Amino acid sequence: MINDVRFSETAEQLQYSAIRASNRDDQNMISFSLGNPEQQFFPLKALQEAYEHVMQADQGQALQYSGTEGFEELRQYIVNERMTTAGVSTTKEEITLISGAQQGINLSAKLFVNKDDIIFCENPTFPGALNTFRQYHAKCIGIPTDKDGMIVDELERKLIQFPNAKMIYTIPDFHNPTGTVMSRERRKQLAKLGATYRIPIVEDSPYGDIVYDGERLPSVKSLDRDGWVVYLGSFSKILVPGLRTGWICATPDILSKFIMAKQNSDLQVSTLSQKLIIELTKRYSLKGHIHSLIKKYKERKEKMETSIKTYFPKDLDYTTPQGGFFFWIQLHADICTNTLLDEAIEHYHVTYVPGAPFYTEESPRNFLRLSFSSVQTDQIEEGMERLGRLLKKHFI
Amino acid sequence: MINDVRFSETAEQLQYSAIRASNRDDQNMISFSLGNPEQQFFPLKALQEAYEHVMQADQGQALQYSGTEGFEELRQYIVNERMTTAGVSTTKEEITLISGAQQGINLSAKLFVNKDDIIFCENPTFPGALNTFRQYHAKCIGIPTDKDGMIVDELERKLIQFPNAKMIYTIPDFHNPTGTVMSRERRKQLAKLGATYRIPIVEDSPYGDIVYDGERLPSVKSLDRDGWVVYLGSFSKILVPGLRTGWICATPDILSKFIMAKQNSDLQVSTLSQKLIIELTKRYSLKGHIHSLIKKYKERKEKMETSIKTYFPKDLDYTTPQGGFFFWIQLHADICTNTLLDEAIEHYHVTYVPGAPFYTEESPRNFLRLSFSSVQTDQIEEGMERLGRLLKKHFI
Repeated sequence: MINDVRFSETAEQLQYSAIRASNRDDQNMISFSLGNPEQQFFPLKALQEAYEHVMQADQGQALQYSGTEGFEELRQYIVNERMTTAGVSTTKEEITLISGAQQGINLSAKLFVNKDDIIFCENPTFPGALNTFRQYHAKCIGIPTDKDGMIVDELERKLIQFPNAKMIYTIPDFHNPTGTVMSRERRKQLAKLGATYRIPIVEDSPYGDIVYDGERLPSVKSLDRDGWVVYLGSFSKILVPGLRTGWICATPDILSKFIMAKQNSDLQVSTLSQKLIIELTKRYSLKGHIHSLIKKYKERKEKMETSIKTYFPKDLDYTTPQGGFFFWIQLHADICTNTLLDEAIEHYHVTYVPGAPFYTEESPRNFLRLSFSSVQTDQIEEGMERLGRLLKKHFI
Repeated sequence: MINDVRFSETAEQLQYSAIRASNRDDQNMISFSLGNPEQQFFPLKALQEAYEHVMQADQGQALQYSGTEGFEELRQYIVNERMTTAGVSTTKEEITLISGAQQGINLSAKLFVNKDDIIFCENPTFPGALNTFRQYHAKCIGIPTDKDGMIVDELERKLIQFPNAKMIYTIPDFHNPTGTVMSRERRKQLAKLGATYRIPIVEDSPYGDIVYDGERLPSVKSLDRDGWVVYLGSFSKILVPGLRTGWICATPDILSKFIMAKQNSDLQVSTLSQKLIIELTKRYSLKGHIHSLIKKYKERKEKMETSIKTYFPKDLDYTTPQGGFFFWIQLHADICTNTLLDEAIEHYHVTYVPGAPFYTEESPRNFLRLSFSSVQTDQIEEGMERLGRLLKKHFI
């Protein structure tokens, strides 16, 4: 046993994910905590066919090393299909593959941030990003949000106040955890701020294609003429997460740094994952698949919404998401969702993610995030009824 | 176009891999540069069967998110089969999965090294490690090697001279690039130095199981009683690299830091990759497969050795590897293998990796690395004949 290992400063900053930790092993548990996609919705047959074609076609190349930036064919598909739905006209020279958007967040911090540098982000925001930024010893300054996403006027005030800030991190589409969409006007304004203040904007959009109401707004990247936006995309929510495949779209000068950093981190995305996605998209409409996903997730979203109305105390504040996987619920100011979670798990067999880890600094204790994506419709009603009973007990 | 992006200090350190860059697209080219395993040796049928079982059994779980440390079943297999061949008796609580050994190198530097800290390594050593260490702004001090690997007495002198050094990186088995094996005596001595000087030793052993002559020596990890050795293993050379799966074996206190850092980097290894390896090892003998790999690679190694004797100038110094994939050749002192490479590619359609990128500091220019692993036997003879002609031309 040794207890005098001298870890790096980075190692001392590391934390486990609050979301992953909130998941427990209990058959009777209904979990609203994980934002996993529903595995019953995975296109298993199409993936099986894709696998057979991969194996017939290339005799082992799919299991060999391959280039860090990823196969041309897959990058071209991303240009033609995925980036166009984000409103971006680009070329495969501006795309490189990564092992999911989390890796894009990590590499962004690595490339843009020195110790003690400032990163701006929405407050609240995705804890996986906050943990990563802290690991790089960045100072995260949270920008307040409203129903139209980040308040970009406030961001500009901070940009003026902190001219040495190094990066802006944003989730404009169906925000995690708030579920809100950044308005078109603010997107334009944000893209402009990048160029004006010469600061990279990392736009993280894993949920962008999962739209329930209205149409997807153009990405910030699509409104950026000068190349300050780095766009992170992922196949995790629209196809499957287990292949660990996402991408970065950025101007070539910036992209080449990402490619070097990716090579240094782990060489490349799984060759088999890439080949499977290439074959799948050749013989199967991912567009049609996403269309059917939207219908199925929308049903779950609506069940959660009606359950809030039926089972929860009447005067709660929450956002109904127009896309993505999350409801963000505000309880009475005197209720702590951290404390409440123990009771929820122990006596009601239901979990959620408490709001605190989503905040950059002092956090209100009375928020919680509910995810409906991986819970079946009848289980959503059952779980919400349980949670409603717990909440009502504390809302006297 | 923007040219005023303020990258981090880390980003300014990044370089492309010299090995990956030396690979060219030319049908007529014979490449001795890449240390890829031979894809004709991949067990495609067994992997096809494994895939079918995975898909029948779990209905999508293989494509879902999964825990950062990896499935228990796979970690138990690694304990039972892979770590025992390295002479290590351990438990699954001391194993976590990574996306190949390169990620283990990267995370090791992240966890143990602050800016300007010292890392000791063999000189020469694997450039993928050197690039990574430089990215973390570490100072790499190279320890000279001889036919028995790192000269550990010299390492101890440096440990006394630099008491604040943070990490030792070593490739004791069939070293890349020198092909040498660290002697049993030096392994014991090295393990002891870790405990005496309270410094982590990162033992990288991707080639350990590919033994041509004699038996595999016990790993440094197996000789370490106090937990200072972090062992990096990989399925890339003994199974396939395209699944991007390797592992770390370390004492739980250290391992938990690796798990957090892995989660922060990219959440987890591909779920499908893990499930495929689990199913494959259940119904297929990886031990038998490695046995047959050794026979096939040994044939290539012998062809390269006889070709050196037949086609190369007579008075060259080189090591015949007892395992692994590499010959390390020393040319006359006045020949620069960087300059020679252009001529080799242009006029002889043969490539190798020049020795310079393998060195920590000022490097001799007259070394080159030849890999026989992914070149067919008759092509080895042809390529060595070409290279021999080039060398003889310059050896007048």
